[in-house]
Amino acid sequence: MHGAVLYAPYDIRDVERPDPTIIEPTDAIIRLSATCICGSDLWPYRGIDPISEPTPMGHEYVGIVEEAGSAVTTIKPGQFVVGSFFASDNTCPICQAGYQSRCVHAEPIGAIGTQAEYARIPLADGTLVATPDIPSDDLIPSLLAASDVLGTGWFAAVAADVAPGRTVAVVGDGAVGVLAVLAAKQLGAERIIIMSRHEDRQKLAAEFGATDIVTERGDAGAAQVKELTDGLGAHSTIEAVGTQESMMQAIGSTRPGGAVGYVGVPHEVALPGEELFFAEVHLLGGPAPVRRFLPELINLICNRKINPGRVFDLELPLSEVAAGYRAMDDRRAIKVLLRP
Amino acid sequence: MHGAVLYAPYDIRDVERPDPTIIEPTDAIIRLSATCICGSDLWPYRGIDPISEPTPMGHEYVGIVEEAGSAVTTIKPGQFVVGSFFASDNTCPICQAGYQSRCVHAEPIGAIGTQAEYARIPLADGTLVATPDIPSDDLIPSLLAASDVLGTGWFAAVAADVAPGRTVAVVGDGAVGVLAVLAAKQLGAERIIIMSRHEDRQKLAAEFGATDIVTERGDAGAAQVKELTDGLGAHSTIEAVGTQESMMQAIGSTRPGGAVGYVGVPHEVALPGEELFFAEVHLLGGPAPVRRFLPELINLICNRKINPGRVFDLELPLSEVAAGYRAMDDRRAIKVLLRP
Repeated sequence: MHGAVLYAPYDIRDVERPDPTIIEPTDAIIRLSATCICGSDLWPYRGIDPISEPTPMGHEYVGIVEEAGSAVTTIKPGQFVVGSFFASDNTCPICQAGYQSRCVHAEPIGAIGTQAEYARIPLADGTLVATPDIPSDDLIPSLLAASDVLGTGWFAAVAADVAPGRTVAVVGDGAVGVLAVLAAKQLGAERIIIMSRHEDRQKLAAEFGATDIVTERGDAGAAQVKELTDGLGAHSTIEAVGTQESMMQAIGSTRPGGAVGYVGVPHEVALPGEELFFAEVHLLGGPAPVRRFLPELINLICNRKINPGRVFDLELPLSEVAAGYRAMDDRRAIKVLLRP
Repeated sequence: MHGAVLYAPYDIRDVERPDPTIIEPTDAIIRLSATCICGSDLWPYRGIDPISEPTPMGHEYVGIVEEAGSAVTTIKPGQFVVGSFFASDNTCPICQAGYQSRCVHAEPIGAIGTQAEYARIPLADGTLVATPDIPSDDLIPSLLAASDVLGTGWFAAVAADVAPGRTVAVVGDGAVGVLAVLAAKQLGAERIIIMSRHEDRQKLAAEFGATDIVTERGDAGAAQVKELTDGLGAHSTIEAVGTQESMMQAIGSTRPGGAVGYVGVPHEVALPGEELFFAEVHLLGGPAPVRRFLPELINLICNRKINPGRVFDLELPLSEVAAGYRAMDDRRAIKVLLRP
């Protein structure tokens, strides 16, 4: 089959890779209908997270089940399925509590590489969720978004205790940030402040439900959020960047007793204990347990209540994967969809 | 009146201080029935938190209302009252959400100094809670505990999402730690692991409901908690120390999706972002909004359902305050009650 492999920084190629096969009886093989490039794929692409050997890329996926292992009971060949970027058994105490990304048997799908024609998905029964029918083609981008960026933005909003009537601030205007706006809107937020300096992203955020824009960053950004909220700060703040500045901006934008949901993978972040203590905000973050939200998200998408696929502003055939990475790297695209 | 004043490290004296008077119409003056020495009073006593002038000490108090300002409507002279270590209006949005220690008009009672015969309490209506009747003398230690250490341990347990059936770990065996055990028991925890190396404190924790003892600290302590919980970690962990080691021990003792409630004032703590992210635990801490819990705690104490006054293992007249600080400093006493 064809698949994307990173050979060195800025050297990604669509090459021939071995067809995946069932290894464990709990595996399934899917034929990808669509896959995409994640902001986190740019870390190894740029050489910031070094690779030691040619590395298959990608962890987002939707597709048709080709084959199911002998122990798979609920997932059947021919179904259209969406899965998360962590395989999970969905039965252990951690999964049952809703934290499937930290399942005791969790396996990162990133190690498999879904920017490809086919992929082996471990723990198929616990990981994959089938759509009610084969979806029409125009729903595929939204279903693909559910497998990571929408699920991650949704988790951030839930972690930040978004609820009807609340004021929400969103730090970060990438695909996850703008989809966190969509999630906050769906969860009933009254006011949604997007912190963004890019006009195209501000526009998409407004379309998803943002009511206010703050262009300042860091302490000045937090001060602006306080000014917009009677000096108190947001009830709920979503952090979708992962830097020291963005984390402190999120904490500083939140009222005492409020909550910060953070989903930007932290790079060289250290939270000062005393400042965090006196901020007195709830803090919850981590790799999003997307599996928890998939049934609800698939339902909203298939019933055309939400259209998260709007984040894909560039669509390419898998054979042009290198052009897709370049567009993401140059910020010419928010998110790139690839058709195998 | 008499009151305790810290003049220099290790130099605390019971001296003549001016009688407090009503300054704001929302103030009340109380005659203290009892007061006590807090673990946090030892920071300035030991010179670690330096003082620039002779400083009245103390922020825990119960007593009889002597006088109420003209704007005070619910608190009346003659009532026996319990208050928190932060004055609060109890009406602002932050108070209404249950975070009275971060009230928009919060005033620290520590600046007033309640190790004294009398004290001026600001925002009396929002800060003080009257008992149904004048309590019998044997209830006074427990009511005094409610004003800080019990309220703080209770908040930590609530912040750590303690609920029926859950397993709770407690890092720290001081007065707050052992009272967090009591709180966890009251909130329905099934199993309560106290992390302690001191036999007297282990014994008191067991009396309050601890079911397991872990004597290891740091990573070894966290590993021991995991071993006791099928490799998963506690559902809820309470941190009542405030050091880097104790915070990381608490985070490491908690299962993904679990919660850490931290109430030890952090001293030189920095939480590594990536470790926190992949731990995926809820984190909430800060100065406890004791006022939120006072009605419930007073009710439990007056109905003799709980006996938190057991944490006071030394009782002295206010005139012997210096001996009280020495006993706390030497760890000869868990907590010292002072009778003015």
